[in-house]
Amino acid sequence: MKQRGIDSLLVTHLPDVRYLCGFTGSNACLAITASRAAMFTDGRYTTQARQETSAARVMIAKSARDEACRWLASSGVKHCAFDPASTTVTELALYRKALPSGHRGFFRPLTESLVPQLRLVKDQEELRLMKQAAHLGVKLFHELLEHLEPGVSETTVAAQLEHNARLQGAEAMSFETIVASGARSALPHGRATAQRLPRKGFVTLDFGVILKGYCSDMTRTVFLGQPTRRERFTYDAVREAQLAAVAAVKPGASCGEVDEAARSVLRKAGLAEYFTHSTGHGVGLEIHEAPRIAADQSQSLLPGMVVTIEPGVYIAGHFGVRIEDMVAVTQEGGQVLTPAPTGWTQL
Amino acid sequence: MKQRGIDSLLVTHLPDVRYLCGFTGSNACLAITASRAAMFTDGRYTTQARQETSAARVMIAKSARDEACRWLASSGVKHCAFDPASTTVTELALYRKALPSGHRGFFRPLTESLVPQLRLVKDQEELRLMKQAAHLGVKLFHELLEHLEPGVSETTVAAQLEHNARLQGAEAMSFETIVASGARSALPHGRATAQRLPRKGFVTLDFGVILKGYCSDMTRTVFLGQPTRRERFTYDAVREAQLAAVAAVKPGASCGEVDEAARSVLRKAGLAEYFTHSTGHGVGLEIHEAPRIAADQSQSLLPGMVVTIEPGVYIAGHFGVRIEDMVAVTQEGGQVLTPAPTGWTQL
Repeated sequence: MKQRGIDSLLVTHLPDVRYLCGFTGSNACLAITASRAAMFTDGRYTTQARQETSAARVMIAKSARDEACRWLASSGVKHCAFDPASTTVTELALYRKALPSGHRGFFRPLTESLVPQLRLVKDQEELRLMKQAAHLGVKLFHELLEHLEPGVSETTVAAQLEHNARLQGAEAMSFETIVASGARSALPHGRATAQRLPRKGFVTLDFGVILKGYCSDMTRTVFLGQPTRRERFTYDAVREAQLAAVAAVKPGASCGEVDEAARSVLRKAGLAEYFTHSTGHGVGLEIHEAPRIAADQSQSLLPGMVVTIEPGVYIAGHFGVRIEDMVAVTQEGGQVLTPAPTGWTQL
Repeated sequence: MKQRGIDSLLVTHLPDVRYLCGFTGSNACLAITASRAAMFTDGRYTTQARQETSAARVMIAKSARDEACRWLASSGVKHCAFDPASTTVTELALYRKALPSGHRGFFRPLTESLVPQLRLVKDQEELRLMKQAAHLGVKLFHELLEHLEPGVSETTVAAQLEHNARLQGAEAMSFETIVASGARSALPHGRATAQRLPRKGFVTLDFGVILKGYCSDMTRTVFLGQPTRRERFTYDAVREAQLAAVAAVKPGASCGEVDEAARSVLRKAGLAEYFTHSTGHGVGLEIHEAPRIAADQSQSLLPGMVVTIEPGVYIAGHFGVRIEDMVAVTQEGGQVLTPAPTGWTQL
């Protein structure tokens, strides 16, 4: 805050609040000045907030937002910064309304994000937790392979996976599990349906768990039965693209370069037009965080960032393939946190 | 829109988009004028968007937001309304940036919410889906009772519940399952932990499923072993409060009156200070929707609204009790959608 010339900050995005002070409840406003910090929540969280919160005083209020604004206004600071990317137009109006008179211009939008910027680079403890989450994902994938067979419904596969995740400590899944089989594998976001796995075709499994707040994310695409030459060719091209992008992950590489590493492989294979999304995204306390691994992104990778690398090819009405790992940026290059094999898997 | 004097509308809140046109993807901007509607999303959703979307033309764009803004600007309308409650300060700036020059003042915040207002009152088809979701919740609760015994961990209980939910068609849980046992039952939002169910004490189970997009929500608190007189007294008071609030649900009653019906029972029992949250909330495509059933809410209930009624008493360090039903407002009064018994249940 000092570096940015900010004398106070109001943090309301829940993952940001958790990151800074540990509180995990569903209603929280964290108010920070140069010398003090107070975390406002409501009466549902009196006990939990005291158990979880560190580095900030816990304040229970009927309106956490209004009390936080008033606390800031009476703290002697001239201005308060807020993150416009996580503040709605209505919320900002309510912040202003909560202030006593004579505070015109008190709230000022950050011109560049602050807490999400800090969250970009994970510290050792965060990396440890993310590895745990990622390794649980790998274990679940291996356990699931035994249950994949023609006739089982996609939702049964998802249920099995999620049940095992829970029994092994996952707090929740990090997003709605994708089980997309047969022609449905051409849907990049094909949530599990009642459709039964075919005798012949791809099955895309894209899932993640939340462990101690941190998200995992991985995708594997396996094949049931005997593939056509086109199916096999496509899989191999996606795998090559994925390996190329993983290899491009290193400190100093731009996100755009990593995206291009995957995209150029698929271009050479004549499949670029079927790769309809970006190559990946940051992951951490949220399943989608900065940075974006996409064509237009100049952001440089730094040691401690964790990103997904997940190129895919989707041929509508026919089939699709996606392979995704979580990759940590280290001084030595990209470290794959989800070490399940990515080679052709035929069941 | 005509009634409100609005000539065009940009809808970006995903449940609102789903409500209006059926699309369920994670990136969508719905642009509406008096004569046309277009739903913008990205290449990941080309196939899915065409399958799901009705009453709007599907447009695939690299930036759904930018294209939607430009489409609106070139549609001949003078202004475009947006919902400030679901638009961040940053998004609004990006909307404005996406416009060609000469469109100063084009985007105008709605002074009162529009789509959430429409969603307040559920139609027959929505009520049918919500009953299905609620009934699945009741079934799961009954199935779960058999598995509750001392020594089983809270996460195992949650895992069992969620697995059964999945196998019976739930797309996901509507929020992180709460299993709070023993002294943890005093945490209103006690997500399942590794703690094992005690030989003696309350277990609060608060969970919901999502079925065809619609959320269910219910809470039951059961007792393991032999209760103290205070535990039994508290349970009975919460139950009485819950029944009183359910009985207060009828067309024309204000949300504040329904809250007071529960609160006054607990006041008479000397427990009002331990009832630290509001009595309930609307539920539908989102787990928390309007209206709020709280002390200061003058909103009148209308036939077709669906709300939760969930008073609770939480005595920190000792125990807590909450009982929650989903209640639909009908011409004849409140109709409980979650008909599991609320009487004292001792296992």
